[in-house]
Amino acid sequence: MKQYITQDPWSIVETDFHRDYNEITESLMSLGNGRLGQRGNFEEKFTGKTLQGNYVAGVYYPDKTRVGWWKNGYPEYFAKVLNAANWAGIDIDIEYESLDLATCDVRDFRRELNMREGYLERSFVAVLKSGKEVKVNAKRFCSIVDDDAGAIRYSLTPLNFDAKITVTPYIDGAIRNRDANYDETFWDEVRKETGYGEAYIELRTRKTGFHVTTGMCVEIEQDGQKMDYQSQPIKYEKYVANRMTLDCQQGQETVIYKYAVNLSSLNHDSDELMRLAHEAIARVSRKGFDRMLFEQKQAWADKWKMNDIVIDGDVAAQQGIRFNIFQLNQTYTGEDERLNIGPKGFTGEKYGGSTYWDTEAYCLPFYLATADQKVARNLLIYRYKHLQKAIENARKLGFRAGAALYPMVTMNGEECHNEWEITFEEIHRNGAIAYAIYDYVRYTGDESYLTDYGLEVLIAISRFWSQRVNWSAAKKQYVMLGVTGPNEYENNVNNNWYTNYIAAWTLRYTIEAVGKVKALNPEKYADLCERIHFREEKEVQNAQHIVDNMHYPYDPERQVFLQQSDFLDKDLMPVSDIPKGQRPLNQNWSWDRILRSCFIKQADVLQGLYFFEDEFDTDTLRRNYAFYEPMTVHESSLSPCVHSIQASKLGMKEKAYEMYLRTARLDLDDYNNDTEDGCHITSMAGTWLAVVKGFGGMRVDAEGLSFSPYCPENWQGLAFKIRYRGALLQITTTQQDVTVQNFSVQPVTLRVHGETVTIAGESKQTVTIPVLA
Amino acid sequence: MKQYITQDPWSIVETDFHRDYNEITESLMSLGNGRLGQRGNFEEKFTGKTLQGNYVAGVYYPDKTRVGWWKNGYPEYFAKVLNAANWAGIDIDIEYESLDLATCDVRDFRRELNMREGYLERSFVAVLKSGKEVKVNAKRFCSIVDDDAGAIRYSLTPLNFDAKITVTPYIDGAIRNRDANYDETFWDEVRKETGYGEAYIELRTRKTGFHVTTGMCVEIEQDGQKMDYQSQPIKYEKYVANRMTLDCQQGQETVIYKYAVNLSSLNHDSDELMRLAHEAIARVSRKGFDRMLFEQKQAWADKWKMNDIVIDGDVAAQQGIRFNIFQLNQTYTGEDERLNIGPKGFTGEKYGGSTYWDTEAYCLPFYLATADQKVARNLLIYRYKHLQKAIENARKLGFRAGAALYPMVTMNGEECHNEWEITFEEIHRNGAIAYAIYDYVRYTGDESYLTDYGLEVLIAISRFWSQRVNWSAAKKQYVMLGVTGPNEYENNVNNNWYTNYIAAWTLRYTIEAVGKVKALNPEKYADLCERIHFREEKEVQNAQHIVDNMHYPYDPERQVFLQQSDFLDKDLMPVSDIPKGQRPLNQNWSWDRILRSCFIKQADVLQGLYFFEDEFDTDTLRRNYAFYEPMTVHESSLSPCVHSIQASKLGMKEKAYEMYLRTARLDLDDYNNDTEDGCHITSMAGTWLAVVKGFGGMRVDAEGLSFSPYCPENWQGLAFKIRYRGALLQITTTQQDVTVQNFSVQPVTLRVHGETVTIAGESKQTVTIPVLA
Repeated sequence: MKQYITQDPWSIVETDFHRDYNEITESLMSLGNGRLGQRGNFEEKFTGKTLQGNYVAGVYYPDKTRVGWWKNGYPEYFAKVLNAANWAGIDIDIEYESLDLATCDVRDFRRELNMREGYLERSFVAVLKSGKEVKVNAKRFCSIVDDDAGAIRYSLTPLNFDAKITVTPYIDGAIRNRDANYDETFWDEVRKETGYGEAYIELRTRKTGFHVTTGMCVEIEQDGQKMDYQSQPIKYEKYVANRMTLDCQQGQETVIYKYAVNLSSLNHDSDELMRLAHEAIARVSRKGFDRMLFEQKQAWADKWKMNDIVIDGDVAAQQGIRFNIFQLNQTYTGEDERLNIGPKGFTGEKYGGSTYWDTEAYCLPFYLATADQKVARNLLIYRYKHLQKAIENARKLGFRAGAALYPMVTMNGEECHNEWEITFEEIHRNGAIAYAIYDYVRYTGDESYLTDYGLEVLIAISRFWSQRVNWSAAKKQYVMLGVTGPNEYENNVNNNWYTNYIAAWTLRYTIEAVGKVKALNPEKYADLCERIHFREEKEVQNAQHIVDNMHYPYDPERQVFLQQSDFLDKDLMPVSDIPKGQRPLNQNWSWDRILRSCFIKQADVLQGLYFFEDEFDTDTLRRNYAFYEPMTVHESSLSPCVHSIQASKLGMKEKAYEMYLRTARLDLDDYNNDTEDGCHITSMAGTWLAVVKGFGGMRVDAEGLSFSPYCPENWQGLAFKIRYRGALLQITTTQQDVTVQNFSVQPVTLRVHGETVTIAGESKQTVTIPVLA
Repeated sequence: MKQYITQDPWSIVETDFHRDYNEITESLMSLGNGRLGQRGNFEEKFTGKTLQGNYVAGVYYPDKTRVGWWKNGYPEYFAKVLNAANWAGIDIDIEYESLDLATCDVRDFRRELNMREGYLERSFVAVLKSGKEVKVNAKRFCSIVDDDAGAIRYSLTPLNFDAKITVTPYIDGAIRNRDANYDETFWDEVRKETGYGEAYIELRTRKTGFHVTTGMCVEIEQDGQKMDYQSQPIKYEKYVANRMTLDCQQGQETVIYKYAVNLSSLNHDSDELMRLAHEAIARVSRKGFDRMLFEQKQAWADKWKMNDIVIDGDVAAQQGIRFNIFQLNQTYTGEDERLNIGPKGFTGEKYGGSTYWDTEAYCLPFYLATADQKVARNLLIYRYKHLQKAIENARKLGFRAGAALYPMVTMNGEECHNEWEITFEEIHRNGAIAYAIYDYVRYTGDESYLTDYGLEVLIAISRFWSQRVNWSAAKKQYVMLGVTGPNEYENNVNNNWYTNYIAAWTLRYTIEAVGKVKALNPEKYADLCERIHFREEKEVQNAQHIVDNMHYPYDPERQVFLQQSDFLDKDLMPVSDIPKGQRPLNQNWSWDRILRSCFIKQADVLQGLYFFEDEFDTDTLRRNYAFYEPMTVHESSLSPCVHSIQASKLGMKEKAYEMYLRTARLDLDDYNNDTEDGCHITSMAGTWLAVVKGFGGMRVDAEGLSFSPYCPENWQGLAFKIRYRGALLQITTTQQDVTVQNFSVQPVTLRVHGETVTIAGESKQTVTIPVLA
């Protein structure tokens, strides 16, 4: 755990330069707009610890998987979002000395990610070896208004010298992924062009053949005036630049504006990319830095108006939730149904920027409640479009007759995880994809989705479960052998309760959905049956038999569900018994020891009780929470949020707050010692859930929307907004009461702390929080 | 299954050239002498299917392991015996045409591995594109008399032309392992020299720094006379050669003699290698091909005198067993305690030529009964010398206080498997290493081994088992979670019966050995206790508690031991239910499907009943055999032999014979479709066991040596020899009776079919086989 980031309600601030933490800070200060992403790297050369990172959404590479010996069914490649051309670089040379914060003294350093307005700013005074002092202020952003574009304002002021300063803004495409499996280069150069103050380069990914054209142009200002300059174009392999030498006087500010655009063949004909890049560069430079930044601030203000969560009286908590919301908004906008949310977004290389079950289990509820309905729908459509690949994936593993196994990790629907054991065993992901359909329909009421897309996916997933279970003659029940549950600190277990439960639930929900669609639209239903050879009677009967006879491991003594059949054979002990200095376990224990231990990486049985809470009473939750939470090390970023929500439900306010801080400030405080790899983007949605479903107690069930909000002890107030079926509501909680404001014109009926209230259009109502006995 | 090899009692013969099977034939026709090994590659250039393979025992490379994501405790590298310089190559060019069997017509092709005399011979007529016909006869061997040397006699006769023929004998060190994890080169060149008809090259392995110097010299004979020739030395990177152009007349035989030596820094100071190679080349060329071959035949005759098994009336069976004995003798001589027996010997790259538990479980009994006692002892000493590394290996996984986990695969004692799951889970290997000590002491009576080496190893292994089990509060017994048994078609199971049994057995045997050593040599015992901090009372008490309370999964209904706790939850079905064309499963099913199935790769519970047969009655064996064998696919080469022995014991003669053929002709008939990777050397010892312990019914127990031999129905006779505590015996069986011949001077008492007989020195005795009711 590290605490060098200044607490501030709206900004992530580093004062003093923490060289050793630079890769962590780079992750935290990442910029993005859903289309482009960029780590918080320095513009000028830096020979210290750094992970250069620039990403273009959807542009990936199938990196051959590393395995000892190949076996049938292993995924052939691990898809990674590529580290792409660096468009932010500006090398600064002051009379034969490079400006490089690794090799000079640094004074008055400050770096800020301004989340309210969406930019990154850095200022410092560098004291070069020669004694020259230069003051720098650099500001940059990825535009969320023009999502091809980024802009930089880089200001230099010599403090104690006059000199010729050589400035080299460049685009560097000679980039490798640090996590490449075979140290290969993933990009080939296609063409490049340079002009006066401009440069363009088009690169193509190997194997996948994506083209990305990056362009830049440069303007120089001295004494507040644009100036002409001599520009020397430079071209190396996969590199273009313009070099200009400027006379700089002591105390005189020189400002370099660098505009950059990135266009990809995902959105344009690749033959057109170069021409379009020229046009785009002309467009952004015409608009200029200040205008672009003004639009940026306005656009972010609009986002915050819909998304912001206000916590009164706890800056650490406030900063945490805003950081999470900010990064989520930077990662995914929901406008392009081909895109999705990588666990690290565009903030690092690990997990390759691919899609995991995180999307359905954690992100979907966030977007359901904070964005237009089409955003959540696009996330569902993404999986619908991958259905044929999921069927193919299951076929490779020996399943038949339209059974679908969605991939653990994917870019285009194909399975592409790096570890076979996860690919084959962690099949509960299939359940999360079914659950997301349920979640969406429940929240939006949009039952037409079932008819048009949902049922087809549900049937395919149910076919998988029906084949994946087997009848145990010994137990006279259906069992599911050889799986890995959400707790990846167990491997290849039998009858993971969560997986068995979500499998049977999927079958139940599919049967229900069959009934609904048949009633709603018999014609479309008949078409579907024919198209996918769905033999209703037989398949439903079979599914029902499994539902009725599924095995759920259970401990009658403790009255808890068992994470897996043999869990009680383990040497059970609480996390508090682990000797000091041995956590996080994954950095201190052998994998073997972890697997054999009772320690749980993330909610597993509890994850199931979270998804299906309506099917269990509170005492059941309480018993299972009391049994499992003490053995849980939360070394998955996805764990604390679920625990926080459940602790809230169980009235364990302190625990809920502790878990909230852990999820909200996971990256800011580098809890798991891995933020340098990138931020945990998908778990940030979990943070939002911890507030809205945890402290806010929001639920949507058959009876509609409800809230049971409360404030943790040290908060004076909590306010959040949600969208619900066309309405926009703000829920404001103090220690005493809850006010629900209805911004929409239609009235909204909901329950607050169990009391049904109807709030007229454009008005609000306050409910006193009942005092619990 | 392929059957293109001619059945012959003493030779492996291919008539007609089977291009598509060439890599298989190359494996089968491998040559070796325990120090050098070589696949049956062609001397002349061949652009068809081929895997060039030359190996120098003990010279390996630590090839970085391929894993998706690293976790603590993963082995860092996979050690491979390196593909070394090719010393057999002789390129032949006939007036601008290369002799290359891939590009010309081939007539009268015949290739023979003569096992009786230990050489490889190949003859053919090549019809070149130009119409030229040339007759070739090539004979070569690795000398078992001078184990640095190999020799080739390569004869060319133009059948329908006169021409200048260019002959280029070479040494090619520009070799890569086909199975390199990262396509790296493993060799660097150190130096090279050429002289008249001679060439030398010294290469050094990367990382490990082994030096290997390979030298060659060439003699040419025409019309039966040695001749002078012009020789043009050639040197490329890692390549040396001499080129000579010879006038060859129609019908005239030209013979090229090529002598080669390989010396390594394993046995010599690396500065001396070049000089020694010159000396060795002088030595072998002085001796000459015919003399060397004569010595080779004599040496092989001596080996066969001790080792041969004669089967009367079944050429396929005869050829099979001789092939197995021949390859075992080629792989390991027992003279160097640093060497061991790789699963593929020197016949291919797979499994890297490293040491597995195969050595202890299968090979040791072969060498115990067929070689000098020191050979088996050297195999034990090999592990003794690796004890500290085994302790280090266990420590990496979190074990303490001198616990040792021997590696699954090793070259120098370090764990170096390619797959973490095997490394961590397949810990039963530790038991096999303890069992080998027991086996050796039982067979030889050499109890001093326990005092000097054995007990120290046993205590370290027992410490591992004591820590590896845990007390299950649920079962009120000790359990062992997360292991893989010998059946690698299950992964990460709980309470693998075999592993639990051999663990408890090790503890029992260690307690017994403690008592023995304490009584035999109290001083040495006290020294040992102090050196390894053995706290006898506490450790023995703890071990005994585990022995008394170990959990053994059992099915009371079927009265069989369960392979693992949840085995009965599987969908049980016989192998005969697998649809046609889906076997071998490992080439047709996804790994996932295999793991979930009930199908067994190799004996698991039965392996335990084989090792510990004295502790179970025959009915127990019968029930377990009847339960497990029908589910066993025998896709490990180590499986059929155990089944054959047990089928013999159970009187299931047909099954025993079927399983015998499968193990004896596994490679010759390419049962598992993988002989092209190399021959299954270690399982060849299993074949020998199937004859001697199976058909021969040999046992050594507390009462001494016994036999219960019988002949399979279609055999007229079976004769084999064994060594036993200084005696050499031959057991000859017909359908009616058994004759035991005692070649030694002292009398030997043993049991034959339960009848105790004493055979005087240098005499024999015949016992009639009792007719079973």
